[in-house]
Amino acid sequence: MSVSDRLEERGLVLPAVSRPGGNYVPATWVGDILFLAGQVAMRDGELVATGRVGGEVTPEVAKTAAEVAVLNALAVAQDAIGSLDRIERVARMTVYVASAPDFTGQSQVANGASDLLVYLLGESGRHARSAVGMASLPIGSPVEVELTIQVKR
Amino acid sequence: MSVSDRLEERGLVLPAVSRPGGNYVPATWVGDILFLAGQVAMRDGELVATGRVGGEVTPEVAKTAAEVAVLNALAVAQDAIGSLDRIERVARMTVYVASAPDFTGQSQVANGASDLLVYLLGESGRHARSAVGMASLPIGSPVEVELTIQVKR
Amino acid sequence: MSVSDRLEERGLVLPAVSRPGGNYVPATWVGDILFLAGQVAMRDGELVATGRVGGEVTPEVAKTAAEVAVLNALAVAQDAIGSLDRIERVARMTVYVASAPDFTGQSQVANGASDLLVYLLGESGRHARSAVGMASLPIGSPVEVELTIQVKR
Repeated sequence: MSVSDRLEERGLVLPAVSRPGGNYVPATWVGDILFLAGQVAMRDGELVATGRVGGEVTPEVAKTAAEVAVLNALAVAQDAIGSLDRIERVARMTVYVASAPDFTGQSQVANGASDLLVYLLGESGRHARSAVGMASLPIGSPVEVELTIQVKR
Repeated sequence: MSVSDRLEERGLVLPAVSRPGGNYVPATWVGDILFLAGQVAMRDGELVATGRVGGEVTPEVAKTAAEVAVLNALAVAQDAIGSLDRIERVARMTVYVASAPDFTGQSQVANGASDLLVYLLGESGRHARSAVGMASLPIGSPVEVELTIQVKR
Repeated sequence: MSVSDRLEERGLVLPAVSRPGGNYVPATWVGDILFLAGQVAMRDGELVATGRVGGEVTPEVAKTAAEVAVLNALAVAQDAIGSLDRIERVARMTVYVASAPDFTGQSQVANGASDLLVYLLGESGRHARSAVGMASLPIGSPVEVELTIQVKR
């Protein structure tokens, strides 16, 4: 199955790539490595939730936010490489989770992002991951994801 | 215009590279990729500000701090590669912003860093960026920047 | 001296590689670069300490936690490449330190990780480093380390 079949199977649609809110770009290339800018949990021009996980935002909602952020990153990747089937490997993903002081479930939130990558990309989606707890994130997003992708030559 | 012309035009001078405060180095090479250590907002041996943005530090001051940190990173890059004109591309920049719990303007702070990179390096300075909010940063710096640079062969 | 001699000299043993707590892998390859997943301060199935540095955890204990996290990362690296003597260079290490709001000694904590890398690997262990302060980390670990390693071809 192609990645677009997988997306359809789940009823998911890649969003349009939004313009960065600053003097940077959504992706850069170095050889066959694609460096993606951090993506927050924005859908249709609005965050799906705002605040810290373990505070205003539940872990379950944050998992969904992580999925939304991953879809934004994949939309950028598709834009850069033409087709997500050309992904050789997601090399690294850092999942930044805005966290209330006592919240230590960053891994569970990040699983939302990881599970979606593996569902959509299979073995190519299996990445090295770091999940960490932040004081806060841009515009109040509960999650931001940063991907580094190797593309088939 | 060369990068050094651009620096002069702005009245900016690259600082001397300071010795790392630990058992590490300011930069490492892998092929044509230069990995730079995180740089804080140190100028002439002192931080230009200390504390969290949205708390003791205003977003405007933090933008300046981000510029100072970028200049420190570029000084390291010049030291490693001889001339900043040999930068092919700033591949990735992560901007860590020490943030009061309710501060969500990390992108605006990071724009200080991004705008300076693009001003000095033109298209080569356009990077994939992540801006995130930290509980705190070394020695109380309001900003720390981490760059990954591709150098012309 | 080989890396295993160095480990023995210090009375250190590389731990078994633990299964990731999610849909990801401990390491990925892109060419000769090995991207390692974040590692926390887990030893024999338990964290060596829990909480924030500058709060429940002292900087000295956190230094030890940083060493433990590095050993976990090196165990993964050995598993991936067969022998740690094949490390060409630790290109980058990010040291995430769970920090009480007023704690700004992240560099000292990170020195625990850096010193151990250089002790074990010599010049090959000298890395570009970022040390940053987090709101919290998975399962309450005081430290998480993320390494990017270049391997000899």
